[in-house]
Amino acid sequence: MELSADRIAKLNVNPLYKTIGIELHEAQDGSARSTLSPNPQVCWPTPGQPHGGILFTVIDTTMAFAVLSLAPDRGCATVDCSIQYPTPARHGPFSCLATTTHQSGRTVFVRAELRDVRNTVVAFGQATFRIIEPKAAGTPP
Amino acid sequence: MELSADRIAKLNVNPLYKTIGIELHEAQDGSARSTLSPNPQVCWPTPGQPHGGILFTVIDTTMAFAVLSLAPDRGCATVDCSIQYPTPARHGPFSCLATTTHQSGRTVFVRAELRDVRNTVVAFGQATFRIIEPKAAGTPP
Amino acid sequence: MELSADRIAKLNVNPLYKTIGIELHEAQDGSARSTLSPNPQVCWPTPGQPHGGILFTVIDTTMAFAVLSLAPDRGCATVDCSIQYPTPARHGPFSCLATTTHQSGRTVFVRAELRDVRNTVVAFGQATFRIIEPKAAGTPP
Amino acid sequence: MELSADRIAKLNVNPLYKTIGIELHEAQDGSARSTLSPNPQVCWPTPGQPHGGILFTVIDTTMAFAVLSLAPDRGCATVDCSIQYPTPARHGPFSCLATTTHQSGRTVFVRAELRDVRNTVVAFGQATFRIIEPKAAGTPP
Repeated sequence: MELSADRIAKLNVNPLYKTIGIELHEAQDGSARSTLSPNPQVCWPTPGQPHGGILFTVIDTTMAFAVLSLAPDRGCATVDCSIQYPTPARHGPFSCLATTTHQSGRTVFVRAELRDVRNTVVAFGQATFRIIEPKAAGTPP
Repeated sequence: MELSADRIAKLNVNPLYKTIGIELHEAQDGSARSTLSPNPQVCWPTPGQPHGGILFTVIDTTMAFAVLSLAPDRGCATVDCSIQYPTPARHGPFSCLATTTHQSGRTVFVRAELRDVRNTVVAFGQATFRIIEPKAAGTPP
Repeated sequence: MELSADRIAKLNVNPLYKTIGIELHEAQDGSARSTLSPNPQVCWPTPGQPHGGILFTVIDTTMAFAVLSLAPDRGCATVDCSIQYPTPARHGPFSCLATTTHQSGRTVFVRAELRDVRNTVVAFGQATFRIIEPKAAGTPP
Repeated sequence: MELSADRIAKLNVNPLYKTIGIELHEAQDGSARSTLSPNPQVCWPTPGQPHGGILFTVIDTTMAFAVLSLAPDRGCATVDCSIQYPTPARHGPFSCLATTTHQSGRTVFVRAELRDVRNTVVAFGQATFRIIEPKAAGTPP
């Protein structure tokens, strides 16, 4: 299953992504890809380096679309997520790949990597999501 | 040790906090407190509810100041962080309390909770930080 | 709700606990307490210090009984768990306290601490459990 | 770098591995492989299924040897580890592969997977280790 290009294009104009500099590219068969071209206001305290919370936001949102590609008519919510920061995020733009690793009922396990322009990983994520009803909190449009 | 009120006041005008709606209140003796009054652009996909990545950002940044209160002339970097989302973040503003639990050399262990206005926890965090040189990446001014 | 002293006494003779040196003391109202008096064969590679996986096992099992105290007729399964090791586990016996922090449907969030005989924390845990049917895998007797 | 077959053979006769049923096969260039053939006493509460803490122990110990393969004359210690349990561990023996993903000074980031005999993943791990002096706590012989 996949999210259509049209649905992704509509998603990408949301205010959160515009504020941060996130663009979703693809969500299909349990995987999703996105790019972070960080806006200056989210690069603090070091100019040019997005805050760790911004890196987390990209990983979390890309994971969510990897999950939604398995259940396009539902929503999903992050239950918990562990993130590691192996290297400083100095060399953007950054590309994120999230992949679901297992689905057990409505619980979905996901992993993701965020890489800089030199292909070095700046963040690893490992998370558990729940598939929820589409009208519930946390459901992307 | 503590961060002076003057230093905190200067910190709070940074572009990241203004964009999101974060205000640091106190950082002292291994603990820090902050508030999230989320701006509308970070409340997506559900109006009124900050994105999970925004909740993470508040926890991560408050933890960082809990760590810095132990080493005010240094910087610090998040090594890794695990976050749980027990309930939807519907009822802001949100208050964050981060507390260091142990320091071993330059490695510091931290826990944090983010509560809504009804005192319900909307996010728990458990993280490992490293104290680093002040000029290094990730050092708040 | 609580697990009766009789049920706990029967549990404590299981082969896993006897091999490792675990004793459950109490499971009531979302909390559980246990002790680790580690057997020599699980103190490797450093004599007198239980392996980190043994410390995890005590935390995980104590958390499970904190969860079961909320649903005594069910079973439960660990979905995921993050553990930190702030200090070496040199001074046993060790005491574990696990506390559920939130229940959302059949998902339960839990935190735990394992302390040495000097009251220093040697491991912090933060986990997500699922309440499951009693006959399913992972159900204590 | 690698741990010699002779050193691995000596390691494998330690009491912890014998009690649980762990065998290390290889540790080389930042990766390590092991097998869990669980002894009956660690398969509780469900006969035939190793306890989640035992699965964690295999992952943690295999990760440690992946780290030690980068620094054969040192020791290492787990700083923190996040583990997920996507499926019940019903079909042993289990094989573990751990791989270091980045080294920054003496901090090493690691991921691991534990698979059953059908090649289904029963546990994912993501951890941070510190390389330490060989005589310090937690150093394998």
